[in-house]
Amino acid sequence: MIDLPYLTPLSPDQQRAFGVPDPWPMAIADRVRFAELDPLNHVNNVAYLIWFESARVAYFKHVGISTYEDNAVEPRIVIRRGEIDWLQEMRADEDYVILSKAVAYRNTSFTMHQEIWAGGTKRAAFTCVIVLLQPDGSGRMPISAHILDYFHDVDSVARRIDTP
Amino acid sequence: MIDLPYLTPLSPDQQRAFGVPDPWPMAIADRVRFAELDPLNHVNNVAYLIWFESARVAYFKHVGISTYEDNAVEPRIVIRRGEIDWLQEMRADEDYVILSKAVAYRNTSFTMHQEIWAGGTKRAAFTCVIVLLQPDGSGRMPISAHILDYFHDVDSVARRIDTP
Amino acid sequence: MIDLPYLTPLSPDQQRAFGVPDPWPMAIADRVRFAELDPLNHVNNVAYLIWFESARVAYFKHVGISTYEDNAVEPRIVIRRGEIDWLQEMRADEDYVILSKAVAYRNTSFTMHQEIWAGGTKRAAFTCVIVLLQPDGSGRMPISAHILDYFHDVDSVARRIDTP
Amino acid sequence: MIDLPYLTPLSPDQQRAFGVPDPWPMAIADRVRFAELDPLNHVNNVAYLIWFESARVAYFKHVGISTYEDNAVEPRIVIRRGEIDWLQEMRADEDYVILSKAVAYRNTSFTMHQEIWAGGTKRAAFTCVIVLLQPDGSGRMPISAHILDYFHDVDSVARRIDTP
Repeated sequence: MIDLPYLTPLSPDQQRAFGVPDPWPMAIADRVRFAELDPLNHVNNVAYLIWFESARVAYFKHVGISTYEDNAVEPRIVIRRGEIDWLQEMRADEDYVILSKAVAYRNTSFTMHQEIWAGGTKRAAFTCVIVLLQPDGSGRMPISAHILDYFHDVDSVARRIDTP
Repeated sequence: MIDLPYLTPLSPDQQRAFGVPDPWPMAIADRVRFAELDPLNHVNNVAYLIWFESARVAYFKHVGISTYEDNAVEPRIVIRRGEIDWLQEMRADEDYVILSKAVAYRNTSFTMHQEIWAGGTKRAAFTCVIVLLQPDGSGRMPISAHILDYFHDVDSVARRIDTP
Repeated sequence: MIDLPYLTPLSPDQQRAFGVPDPWPMAIADRVRFAELDPLNHVNNVAYLIWFESARVAYFKHVGISTYEDNAVEPRIVIRRGEIDWLQEMRADEDYVILSKAVAYRNTSFTMHQEIWAGGTKRAAFTCVIVLLQPDGSGRMPISAHILDYFHDVDSVARRIDTP
Repeated sequence: MIDLPYLTPLSPDQQRAFGVPDPWPMAIADRVRFAELDPLNHVNNVAYLIWFESARVAYFKHVGISTYEDNAVEPRIVIRRGEIDWLQEMRADEDYVILSKAVAYRNTSFTMHQEIWAGGTKRAAFTCVIVLLQPDGSGRMPISAHILDYFHDVDSVARRIDTP
């Protein structure tokens, strides 16, 4: 077994060593907790959503979309729509990696892909639409230029050409 | 405010009185809990998934798909895919109703729709695919005739015609 | 089985009908959820703490200690110490009642007792010390006179005599 | 900031580097998750109990009290009583260490101490009584000799002298 650093972004080599064939820009390792097991001793379906949420919050901080600090003036981040595939059940004590990246964007919203990998296989996949609102929730907020740069340069999102 | 019986299937009239315009075959009322609130004082996105899960378990028991008792020989119920829309945020202490019904089926799987309503508006919607496995997880298990009867008679699912 | 109104304060007669021999000033009924079951199909130990917390929040609102509304100027309520007894395990779908009352107080803190009853037996008991802080957390805040009145008149807490 | 290996037992030197003045036999590091924050942006009181539980399960496996595997014939581990002190609130993203050890035992039960440390200060402390039952829950089960050896040799629990 490899030495897997938990809760810290993994390098591409660390991802490959853990069994992720094509490394993603952001990958964070964690381990199944006892409280996440259901009466069948499998991970509860809802726990995956909590894992995806934790990784999205880490992503938002890393990219600079939100600091989540008290009194910070920054967009309210709202998730509007999600599609999840539970592909293969997980069990007690398994190590897993959560992969996260943006895959598309519009003026005030963007789409993220996320996957859970463990033991060399994909266990779950999630696609969701994130909307940025004004801090008081009053309306939409455009995505900042530095965030779009991250989408293009790190996540390799195709540049969006607005026709005049 | 109407007298809303929590955690008990609501009659069509009770659903209408609560603000659900078109009653569903199964509707269960509940209330937001303190532990479900996030740092913005809104209901955490994941809490909705737990509500939908609770209502599905109640539905499975009601329809006779599973008793969830120890040592019962009955199908293992697995959720494979889900799509969720978070439509309007919910806040502390709100009463809500979870609506659940089957909408389609195949030999060993079926599709469910679920919605959350509160204050006369739809707050979230979930569609998922449920698969029945053998008790030991070894393979698929066909949907029993009495369950199909429920789908047809109570949930008004269109009868599936298998061509020879 | 009696007709038990969930999530609503129970009258003394309703408490007796449910099997609580000596009714408490505040009693709220609820039911075990699927997500609260552990791999042994018992209620997870931690779930009891969430139930007690929900009932405390309801108590604080009822007594007028806190409204939990945004921007309200009211004490920050902090729990400092707790003792819990898990007396008899609970299982899927059981109905239960959470009993809550204050039992003692000092200038800026008070002690609460809480119990879970189901099927005519006590399942868990919790005693905790609650401290009131200034809204910004900067120091202690004295308990208001109307709250002390509630402690004396409703919860029958012995009046505290401060010697000069 | 030191390089803290999460979810893996820490050496005494790693514990000291993290700010635990007197290392314990078992120490596991972890980090606050977004889902554990309450509306005040502090860690929810109940989250600490989940952390203690996770660390106890790790302890039970490490000591050989339970494997938690399906169909294993091993004691049912029941927690009977607990005392918790919430000493200093924790916030988003804080790293913490959970310390766990046995401190006393009788024939079929033992007492554990657990503490949470972060930023060089103790944040919470928990003491609980654990009872071992037969696998079917029918009665008490004595603590095995190899577990008592661990209590004596690793956790430095005082040897219990039974008078004849």
